Amino acid sequence: MPPEEFRRWARIAADWIADYHSKVGSLPVMSQIKPGELRASLPPKAPEHGETFKAVLEDLDKLIMPGLTHWQSPNFFGYFPCNNSFPSILGEILSAGLGVQGMLWATSPACTELEAHVLDWMAEMMGLPAKFKSSGKGGGVIQDSASSAVLCALLSARERATNLASNERGCDRSLTVYASNQAHSSVEKAVKIAGIGKQNLRLIETDERFAMRPEALATQITKDRKAGLTPCFVCATTGTTSSNGFDPLSEIGRICRGRREESARRKRVRKRTPHLGIWLHVDAAMSGTATICPEFRHFQKGLEFADSYASNPHKWMFTNFDCDCFYVADRASLIRALSVLPEYLRNQATESGSVIDYRDWQIPLGRRFRALKLWFVIRHYGVEGLKHHIRRHVALAQEFADWVGLSDEFELLAPVPLNLVCFAAKAPRAGRRARNEFNAQLLDRLNKSGKLFLTHTILNGCYALRFCIGQTYTEREHVDEAWRVIRNVARELGEEKGAQARRFGGRKISQEN
Amino acid sequence: MPPEEFRRWARIAADWIADYHSKVGSLPVMSQIKPGELRASLPPKAPEHGETFKAVLEDLDKLIMPGLTHWQSPNFFGYFPCNNSFPSILGEILSAGLGVQGMLWATSPACTELEAHVLDWMAEMMGLPAKFKSSGKGGGVIQDSASSAVLCALLSARERATNLASNERGCDRSLTVYASNQAHSSVEKAVKIAGIGKQNLRLIETDERFAMRPEALATQITKDRKAGLTPCFVCATTGTTSSNGFDPLSEIGRICRGRREESARRKRVRKRTPHLGIWLHVDAAMSGTATICPEFRHFQKGLEFADSYASNPHKWMFTNFDCDCFYVADRASLIRALSVLPEYLRNQATESGSVIDYRDWQIPLGRRFRALKLWFVIRHYGVEGLKHHIRRHVALAQEFADWVGLSDEFELLAPVPLNLVCFAAKAPRAGRRARNEFNAQLLDRLNKSGKLFLTHTILNGCYALRFCIGQTYTEREHVDEAWRVIRNVARELGEEKGAQARRFGGRKISQEN
Repeated sequence: MPPEEFRRWARIAADWIADYHSKVGSLPVMSQIKPGELRASLPPKAPEHGETFKAVLEDLDKLIMPGLTHWQSPNFFGYFPCNNSFPSILGEILSAGLGVQGMLWATSPACTELEAHVLDWMAEMMGLPAKFKSSGKGGGVIQDSASSAVLCALLSARERATNLASNERGCDRSLTVYASNQAHSSVEKAVKIAGIGKQNLRLIETDERFAMRPEALATQITKDRKAGLTPCFVCATTGTTSSNGFDPLSEIGRICRGRREESARRKRVRKRTPHLGIWLHVDAAMSGTATICPEFRHFQKGLEFADSYASNPHKWMFTNFDCDCFYVADRASLIRALSVLPEYLRNQATESGSVIDYRDWQIPLGRRFRALKLWFVIRHYGVEGLKHHIRRHVALAQEFADWVGLSDEFELLAPVPLNLVCFAAKAPRAGRRARNEFNAQLLDRLNKSGKLFLTHTILNGCYALRFCIGQTYTEREHVDEAWRVIRNVARELGEEKGAQARRFGGRKISQEN
Repeated sequence: MPPEEFRRWARIAADWIADYHSKVGSLPVMSQIKPGELRASLPPKAPEHGETFKAVLEDLDKLIMPGLTHWQSPNFFGYFPCNNSFPSILGEILSAGLGVQGMLWATSPACTELEAHVLDWMAEMMGLPAKFKSSGKGGGVIQDSASSAVLCALLSARERATNLASNERGCDRSLTVYASNQAHSSVEKAVKIAGIGKQNLRLIETDERFAMRPEALATQITKDRKAGLTPCFVCATTGTTSSNGFDPLSEIGRICRGRREESARRKRVRKRTPHLGIWLHVDAAMSGTATICPEFRHFQKGLEFADSYASNPHKWMFTNFDCDCFYVADRASLIRALSVLPEYLRNQATESGSVIDYRDWQIPLGRRFRALKLWFVIRHYGVEGLKHHIRRHVALAQEFADWVGLSDEFELLAPVPLNLVCFAAKAPRAGRRARNEFNAQLLDRLNKSGKLFLTHTILNGCYALRFCIGQTYTEREHVDEAWRVIRNVARELGEEKGAQARRFGGRKISQEN
């Protein structure tokens, strides 16, 4: 494709995106296709001869679009926000055009330096402790996801606890890991991947706000130590995915730190003992963005105890996936755990020790120039602009929570600290099972309507609808309309159920006759 | 940013990319900046107020550009090709605009179905065994990199060998893993991450073509079994990164298969014995693209023995990073090893069992719509067009190898099966150490010239220059010019060294007087 043709098609693609973003609110949010439907419409073999880009773009509209669930819709309230923005898209466009590799500083210095720099900006914007900045012993890196971040943190913890012996001789099976029973599934996945094993993962009970009970953590750690095990890693969550619970970092941190100091005392006695401190990782993937606003920083009180931290601008900071900001207080621990240096990657800059080689901070080797979009977003919105939008989302969610709280038909199933509302229809005369079934059917009907999209969770055995506000284009009118649709569909469903019950009741009566 | 403003800036960005690709051949390939130079030019804090996009784009030109090494330059011959193309960039642009999440089928069905479909196309295009297609028990998935692919393969192997006990109880430390001493560093990294330990990784010796010696593999496996260990994974490479060695898959496959059958026999006797077969993964990250041309498929003879396979369109198939195509013959093994299902991700489609949820095929949870760019590339070039460019690159490399072979001043240090030429200046009167130093200085001087970029490796103790041809815009004229520059710079350096030697010699004589 000659450059002139690219100019032409890129303009058409740009217009296509602008049009898409302008109309996305009017599209059915959830894709309505059936499994296999798209594949059935695609040719079984790759084309032998090249096709025009016109044909490709037509197929995008005709074949792909009906198969998409529109995450950028202002009526998308499911899972977690995954909001992008035009400045971020421009960052992705230019990054794709440049096509550079940032695996080493030497392979494109700007790619590494901009990332380190913008992650220092982010640390300051979110009020993180200074130790996480690259100016000291720590530093930040963009990971693809919080799953990869927690894995990297866990591997660093594993190697610190075993003095690099797990990397060398295989994972020490006496290591134990802790997270709340509300922690993200990526913790269990990381524990399995790292060879620690699910049996060595302790899911600590939570309180009525779905926050980890620190005393339960302390008890379990003591019990494990007595059993000859080696607690090495705690994952605390500030903003759980399921219901936005916030673990108390100060108490958890003191438990980890206390043990670490005890281990330091032991160390003075017995030399060559591996470092037994408990690594504290804080997973703020879902809600970390909120801490750009100082009034929400109390949720991360105690963060100074943490060894690592992750937050996802690709969730709630107008930045395209993938962009997880992962920080470590001691980058040497991370690099020691993940570094492997073959001859063909050796270079003067690496050997000088004066540069960051991000390949040693992550699982894969190669990496895209992802800092560009984050830089663009921060510069476009400014810190002030980001605060404005975060506050707007939180205010909308609080208002929605008020409507639920004041309603006779619905109730809140969890506190609403920020922008996630977990609620359910009361369906008063039914038992828990029937009530859960009612809410599951309600969700299904809402999503199939295409008018809005939300997802669910289970809280204390109750099926809860999750309503998360954080998309770029979500305004008050969308939340208003969503609440109207939710109430209407719930009433419709309630009436149908009532009629059904009467019909069944009638039949029962007639059978009795 | 309103849509109209995005249209305007996206057009400017598109023109920027078209201009960049038109002039990239005239830019110094390697960035000339010093460590810290970019960071020093950036403000220490994020801007409080939003800035214009004009200011951002100006900084891209002024601050970022000097810090980039231009991977898309036709004069880039380093590491591995990382070639993108306009159709691929258009795919990335539209994917960024759509901003959908493909973690589950349900979160955007088209994202999953297009990926599964295009990976089946790719399997057929590269002549892979039918078992790797999703129509049977196998299937393909896009990973970020071959590093993640080998990790996923290793985890599947670990769980198959231990009947899921490693996921449950922690990694079994008697597992052993095999790869040639020329295998990619990602194998060692995966072995460490998975908790198997570097001590349990056997680097098998290679022959004069840098291919694994199958008899050495068989001997080592037998030895390990006798020692009570459990061989579980062999990574064979078809096209090593260092020198493009090709491991003999048929012989290696028979060794793995033989053991597997033996284990099956044992199984009939002792029930509940874990599956002891050796998982064979084939890493074709560097050279797999070549097999789109039937004449290069002999390199993967024996692939029918493999359990998994990975090749990187983001290296040599005009597709933007990240796009590694990873295939498994038995997707159930992969899913069992990596699946964790929290309540908030449950959905009807997943429970029906009729769809692929790619989150269970990879380390992270979230995923971009990466199939779009691969689809665009295949449809734009057609299979025929891809063959044309691959053959062109191979022919250019073969020609370059001939020039080296016929030259008095240079020699080849490895066979040249495809598009990578490993060579060195002879520097005849010097010993090996001086000769290696000469070639290291030659590389440094070539790269600092900005006229071309190549990297190095060490082969049998000799420092070798690696000249890899695979960039989208590389034509014969660039290879001609590169050869001219290499010879000139080598002569210059030789003359300087000669003068130096004479100077030192002179001084020595005067000292003796």
